[in-house]
Amino acid sequence: MKFSPALQELMEALRCLPGVGPKSAQRMTLHLLERDREGASKLAEALQDAVDKIDHCSRCRNFTELDVCEICSDLRRDAATICVVETPGDVLAVEQSGSYRGLYFVLMGHLSPIDGIGPEDIGLDKFQRRVLDEGISEVILATNPTVEGEATAYYLTDMLQPQGIRVSRIAHGVPLGGELEYVDGSTLAHAFSGRRVVE
Amino acid sequence: MKFSPALQELMEALRCLPGVGPKSAQRMTLHLLERDREGASKLAEALQDAVDKIDHCSRCRNFTELDVCEICSDLRRDAATICVVETPGDVLAVEQSGSYRGLYFVLMGHLSPIDGIGPEDIGLDKFQRRVLDEGISEVILATNPTVEGEATAYYLTDMLQPQGIRVSRIAHGVPLGGELEYVDGSTLAHAFSGRRVVE
Repeated sequence: MKFSPALQELMEALRCLPGVGPKSAQRMTLHLLERDREGASKLAEALQDAVDKIDHCSRCRNFTELDVCEICSDLRRDAATICVVETPGDVLAVEQSGSYRGLYFVLMGHLSPIDGIGPEDIGLDKFQRRVLDEGISEVILATNPTVEGEATAYYLTDMLQPQGIRVSRIAHGVPLGGELEYVDGSTLAHAFSGRRVVE
Repeated sequence: MKFSPALQELMEALRCLPGVGPKSAQRMTLHLLERDREGASKLAEALQDAVDKIDHCSRCRNFTELDVCEICSDLRRDAATICVVETPGDVLAVEQSGSYRGLYFVLMGHLSPIDGIGPEDIGLDKFQRRVLDEGISEVILATNPTVEGEATAYYLTDMLQPQGIRVSRIAHGVPLGGELEYVDGSTLAHAFSGRRVVE
């Protein structure tokens, strides 16, 4: 059966959302038309608005509709420390933990020579200039503990340490509340090699 | 942390989709902005288009952007049989089964006196006129096997049978491929009371 064209198009367009397959797209379409047309209109507007307005912060590359994002322009934050993360979602996760008051640099990806993603594609040339210009004292590497994330962290260390910048990597190990029994082997290996003397 | 306002608004607007909580909304927002801005624009357009154009078919009440929907205006279909369903999703399910070639009437709900939904709210006055005017020979009731769906089916039977219309109800029982062991009690009870003599 053919659904009417406008319905069919909406169903297909919804598939651009991650985790939405044909069945959910159908359910969403019918739900919006039957019960929440106002919500659908608002969503259409919010989508277009976000696409039109949101760009990268000229300083940290995070998403923002301003030239310099709210975090970068917040004078109460420690401007001598920069935390390097892969995505805007990572910034959000760190902010929600409430454990960090410095600034950020968002790579919007990671080094991946196989996909043709080199240092300039993730803004590292710009980042190096920023670190030297702004007299940053410490760079905290919070890239993901994946092969690419680690490679990116190594590259950054090699780039910054010779300039006399203190470079640190966030700790990886057994998560709080995690049970040893259920933690995977490589995390445990990390936790052992990263052990600290109890003082 | 405050996300930038346009981002925040998009995240909240996405919550109007069924099954989307705060975490998925965040994931969708970042995915669209990082990787699929074109898809986001298309989705915005498809949403607005659907909301503006799609209304109910004047004959069967299904969703359509035409005055009379494609199924109702398809001359190859059996115009003497009408199948009554609760929602446009039900029409789709029946069509996909390929087992029915008649027309439909979509209630867009079911009788529910507690919620103030009476016969006129689900178009039954209009439906009765249509059945008589068009000389319908059989009405197949395919409302859901829920309390409200059954009540709606009884109401329709009471309304149509005195007019000499043949009224039937689709069979309820053990689904094909289902294992008896895992079928719930009321379905089994239905299957027993609806048994047929093997000929």
